[in-house]
Amino acid sequence: MINFPNGKKAILNTNKQTKSSTAANRGMSLEEDLNASNQYYLAHDMANIHKKPTPVQIVKVDYPKRSAAKITEAYYKTPSTTDYNGVYKGYYIDFEAKETRNLNFFKLALVHPHQVKHLKSVINHGGLAFFIIKFSAYDEVYLISAKYVIDCIDQGFKHILYKDLKENGYRILGKYQPRLDYLACIDQYIKEVY
Amino acid sequence: MINFPNGKKAILNTNKQTKSSTAANRGMSLEEDLNASNQYYLAHDMANIHKKPTPVQIVKVDYPKRSAAKITEAYYKTPSTTDYNGVYKGYYIDFEAKETRNLNFFKLALVHPHQVKHLKSVINHGGLAFFIIKFSAYDEVYLISAKYVIDCIDQGFKHILYKDLKENGYRILGKYQPRLDYLACIDQYIKEVY
Repeated sequence: MINFPNGKKAILNTNKQTKSSTAANRGMSLEEDLNASNQYYLAHDMANIHKKPTPVQIVKVDYPKRSAAKITEAYYKTPSTTDYNGVYKGYYIDFEAKETRNLNFFKLALVHPHQVKHLKSVINHGGLAFFIIKFSAYDEVYLISAKYVIDCIDQGFKHILYKDLKENGYRILGKYQPRLDYLACIDQYIKEVY
Repeated sequence: MINFPNGKKAILNTNKQTKSSTAANRGMSLEEDLNASNQYYLAHDMANIHKKPTPVQIVKVDYPKRSAAKITEAYYKTPSTTDYNGVYKGYYIDFEAKETRNLNFFKLALVHPHQVKHLKSVINHGGLAFFIIKFSAYDEVYLISAKYVIDCIDQGFKHILYKDLKENGYRILGKYQPRLDYLACIDQYIKEVY
């Protein structure tokens, strides 16, 4: 269904390759970069976008004297939404961030059904829904509309090719501050789509 | 600074009084009612609004064989936002829910500085920001613009009187489904303000 360049099977990324890159924020995870960017946007009054806390089912809590409550038994819960949401220029913004080590494609199996369902609903209610996808081998990050990704899934595709992401998404530039200036891409998206 | 009716000191609510009421969802906390209402709105494709998970700092996780990861040490973190947000008719919606047992006023000390800061930022970025306040003594719930509440705080008020909330807020009707139809109040708010 998906044609790889030259019909070759995709080669998995190696650590060597990652280490040979020279990007400024090398070693930072996509999540760390996004959190730092969101803090920058908030501090500079540009947007109010946050990562949601990981949902946890708390079972047991101890209250040691004179110290903070200590949770001693808890379990991870499956989230029902995406990780990031907030407000920018009056728009409701919602996105999921994904990282791949693959060189040629992004595996759509990494997108969970609850995320698809949630993002469809967000689009339906007039929000702006995206994926932010990092190809760590190239240290390149793209913003792509959730609609594009969902359409690929609904058509039965198993991957989005790197070259298709480049073509249909917006490259997020890595800077000193904010580390990932994804609002610039959202601006472009709004200009083109609205 | 605040004048109580007849200059009297406010009387605290008693359990007796609460029990004498006959509302259908008696005993349900405001949070439970809002979560059920949000589920209803989501299932009926009316809005996509969620309570954020409680932020927790996870310190230690056990991975017992063949069973789910068990968090064995974690601590509550102070949230930097409000509890609820989402999207409705293209609007970014953000609110904090508060419950009081008081008969005559809502104590503004219950609103935390980080919530004020966050809601100011939301308003600034074009989102709709609210408080949902329940007077449990009367089993009455009101939606009021965050701007009103923040103005009271900024003017140095210590309370919002029940009667002022009645006058300046929107009464949220308790129904069978959704239990708290607060979108109806947001509709009214949009109509009046926008």
